[in-house]
Amino acid sequence: MNLPINRQFRLAARPVGLPKRNDWSFVEEPARAPADGECLVAVEYLSMDPAMRGWMNPGPSYLPEIPLGGLMRAGGVGRVLESKSPAFTAGDYVSGSLGVQSFATITASGCTKIDPAIAPLPVYLGALGMTGMTAYFALLEIGQPKAGETVVVSGAAGAVGSVAGQIAKIKGCRVIGIAGGAEKCRTVMEDYGFDACIDYKAGDIRAALKAACPTGIDVYFDNVGGDILEACLGQINLHARIVLCGGISQYNSTTPPKGPANYMMLTIKRARMEGMIVFDYTARYPEAARDIAGWLAAGKMKSRQQIVEGIETFPETMLKLFSGENNGKLVLKV
Amino acid sequence: MNLPINRQFRLAARPVGLPKRNDWSFVEEPARAPADGECLVAVEYLSMDPAMRGWMNPGPSYLPEIPLGGLMRAGGVGRVLESKSPAFTAGDYVSGSLGVQSFATITASGCTKIDPAIAPLPVYLGALGMTGMTAYFALLEIGQPKAGETVVVSGAAGAVGSVAGQIAKIKGCRVIGIAGGAEKCRTVMEDYGFDACIDYKAGDIRAALKAACPTGIDVYFDNVGGDILEACLGQINLHARIVLCGGISQYNSTTPPKGPANYMMLTIKRARMEGMIVFDYTARYPEAARDIAGWLAAGKMKSRQQIVEGIETFPETMLKLFSGENNGKLVLKV
Repeated sequence: MNLPINRQFRLAARPVGLPKRNDWSFVEEPARAPADGECLVAVEYLSMDPAMRGWMNPGPSYLPEIPLGGLMRAGGVGRVLESKSPAFTAGDYVSGSLGVQSFATITASGCTKIDPAIAPLPVYLGALGMTGMTAYFALLEIGQPKAGETVVVSGAAGAVGSVAGQIAKIKGCRVIGIAGGAEKCRTVMEDYGFDACIDYKAGDIRAALKAACPTGIDVYFDNVGGDILEACLGQINLHARIVLCGGISQYNSTTPPKGPANYMMLTIKRARMEGMIVFDYTARYPEAARDIAGWLAAGKMKSRQQIVEGIETFPETMLKLFSGENNGKLVLKV
Repeated sequence: MNLPINRQFRLAARPVGLPKRNDWSFVEEPARAPADGECLVAVEYLSMDPAMRGWMNPGPSYLPEIPLGGLMRAGGVGRVLESKSPAFTAGDYVSGSLGVQSFATITASGCTKIDPAIAPLPVYLGALGMTGMTAYFALLEIGQPKAGETVVVSGAAGAVGSVAGQIAKIKGCRVIGIAGGAEKCRTVMEDYGFDACIDYKAGDIRAALKAACPTGIDVYFDNVGGDILEACLGQINLHARIVLCGGISQYNSTTPPKGPANYMMLTIKRARMEGMIVFDYTARYPEAARDIAGWLAAGKMKSRQQIVEGIETFPETMLKLFSGENNGKLVLKV
């Protein structure tokens, strides 16, 4: 086949603070033909995730750093154009770490087949994708909520937070969201069915938490870190679980991040703060996907995507994650 | 019987920073006769614990605050002079929350009988007391060390740290202590048998940790908080356990305590930070005491007490906990 022109964002510089457009280079060149065991995939949608910011930093983390000059890492879904692997045939839809590019030539074993008849493609980046898997395992495995407990979720209008809160509701918990602005709080309560939502921009978060959680916090699902983590730690119950899923308030900080000054609440309350990375649960994704697909089909869960078009908008689109503009799962349509 | 004169320290003021002598009042008055269900105990030894500082602060913590004018709380051991409870008879030795006083009239159900033939009385405030119970359950239940793992213990020359490290050695771990000064480090290695000990006053703690733990840290038993907690978090392994047992570097701080800026290492390493309070394990004290007494008898563990005489020295004696002067379990002989 004729190889299409691939448009690709590569990491050009290590950003300081918020990334800027020229921290990437934009390259157009013919896609590479798949070798044995590889597929050529036409990328259709890319997942925009706060974690992308961390991947741009130097030094290994839970994944290797993206090398300077290397393809910007991103999860995505697309259609197989050509397969040199028995696992897929042309026309199949797949999800995987496709990168910020329009055509991906990748190892077939790194891809999972998806079925657009079950859910629209962008949902495979939302509730049925890494986002949903993260929310599912972080809440259920680390948070271990029990029916009747109070669960607080920050970043509640965000991709992971909205799914985590909905799962907590399904499990019979009282669920309080924290989000920025009245519009997001409305979404969190009306669309996602949280019992209450605190607008952290509206004033004293501690007082609002106390009012919303009169019996204290049993599970705090942290997507943001910083002052909100500290405020929630201040009101945990005995044997509370703090799920460290993200720390978006700190990702672009140019000063050292702020640790929770009241971390000794963990001792006073014999509580636990634990991190999770979704990749540890790959073997169990089918179990989570089955549950989530069932909840979506039964109308017990909503997956909301905000779709921005055009791969060339990638830098500005990704920054929406940090400006608080986006609502639901942010997806880039290639 | 004639009631003896009781000499007692009461909380007179809420200290700011390090407590001063006049944060307590010293009162002499006749001891109270025991009512039904109570005993009159001649207090022989009192346990000096960093946690005492926290009990002086306003507001409830894991125990109620000591009210102004109230008896200063302390664990102790003593001899029953008179018993109005079938649980004890005069001449029995008991341990319990006796308070900083020479004669305690207390509820019998709050006391445990101890046997001075098994170990000298001060050991019942050390390895066989709350100190040993704390080290035992914090290490084994929260830390969950496995043979071959690397365990780091701060406050390693201290009462809890020295026992925790010795138990980790018994369980087959490689054990690294952190202590202040060459003399304490010598004690930690030679007397308590740790594999190595880092003098945090001697220079770059991060470099010293890296050298002492070339394969990273699996369990960090934290007695101190602050910079040392942060340094250890920086070198944890996948699925590490951080046991929050104390935070002595912060107890007298007049500025807000410092949270660990790199707490997101818990996410990167899918690690867990968890607090413990020994009182949650009261039902299991006999199990721990049996193990520890066995280790002491077999020469596998040393319990070292530093004994200061005279109840009137209480304020200055307690402050030795925070000046770094004491070595081993600090005990006040009444």
